[in-house]
Amino acid sequence: MPSLCILGIDPGTLRMGYAVLTVGDDDPAPVAWGVLAASGRLPLGQRLYTLHTQLLEIMERHHPTHAAAEEPFVSANVRTALAIGQAQGLALLAAAQKGVPLAGYSPRQVKLAVTGNGAATKDQVQQAVAFHLRLSSLPTPTDASDALAVALCHWQALREEGMLLP
Amino acid sequence: MPSLCILGIDPGTLRMGYAVLTVGDDDPAPVAWGVLAASGRLPLGQRLYTLHTQLLEIMERHHPTHAAAEEPFVSANVRTALAIGQAQGLALLAAAQKGVPLAGYSPRQVKLAVTGNGAATKDQVQQAVAFHLRLSSLPTPTDASDALAVALCHWQALREEGMLLP
Repeated sequence: MPSLCILGIDPGTLRMGYAVLTVGDDDPAPVAWGVLAASGRLPLGQRLYTLHTQLLEIMERHHPTHAAAEEPFVSANVRTALAIGQAQGLALLAAAQKGVPLAGYSPRQVKLAVTGNGAATKDQVQQAVAFHLRLSSLPTPTDASDALAVALCHWQALREEGMLLP
Repeated sequence: MPSLCILGIDPGTLRMGYAVLTVGDDDPAPVAWGVLAASGRLPLGQRLYTLHTQLLEIMERHHPTHAAAEEPFVSANVRTALAIGQAQGLALLAAAQKGVPLAGYSPRQVKLAVTGNGAATKDQVQQAVAFHLRLSSLPTPTDASDALAVALCHWQALREEGMLLP
């Protein structure tokens, strides 16, 4: 029986990558990964509603015990920061609604955790994720591989904190 | 019977002002106003959850047909923009969940609509709101008077667009 289930989220207001890992006695095993998408033709409120509903469905299906989201790099661009705030807010809300603690990691922390290089490319992250999880092919699209990477990063952090019993 | 019910929202991640106006044959009548608050000691996700739940309760109680939110002035400060995005996202999500169209107005537009001066002070907005709505005392706190002002601003816009039948 898995003792723990980690949901990884790569938040966005058009596409949201997600990944579910279970951790039992062994290394983490990927259960599901993919992308939640909302049409760019929809008004922003409808997009947020679509993404929020789908994120709650994922949580109802897999019952994660832990969650982690990538906190995108916030540039000096205020318009980007607004959109990031909206997407982060959705993930924070959904996790709180389901009573799941949500951790946040910078892109650099995630890359460092899975590849050993904080400046790794998206391709390198995909390959490292496929290697760690023994996937027979590269996980796509990159929204989903980024979500797998943030879930793996959180698993490492929990293990280092002694949160995972031997 | 009121033909229309307008919810005004002054979004924030710690306090959210709200106001409900009904519009029948006559001038708009204030039905409720106040502040939804979340303790600053709570983690951000819990705060968003508390505010979102309360906002949905307000909508379930009053069944607004229209909603409007003040879009705060976004300065060059990226940290502020993130928080504004989170608060806006909540209001957009709640309105979409309830199928209520949500309009956005800048602080300048709101002040101009209720006082005739786009650079009016909070005190002047309170006094103009009390005058327009024939309140016997100033509506407080300013989160609530700002929400009343954005609801009044939206009522004027709907009337000018011919959305309100004579």
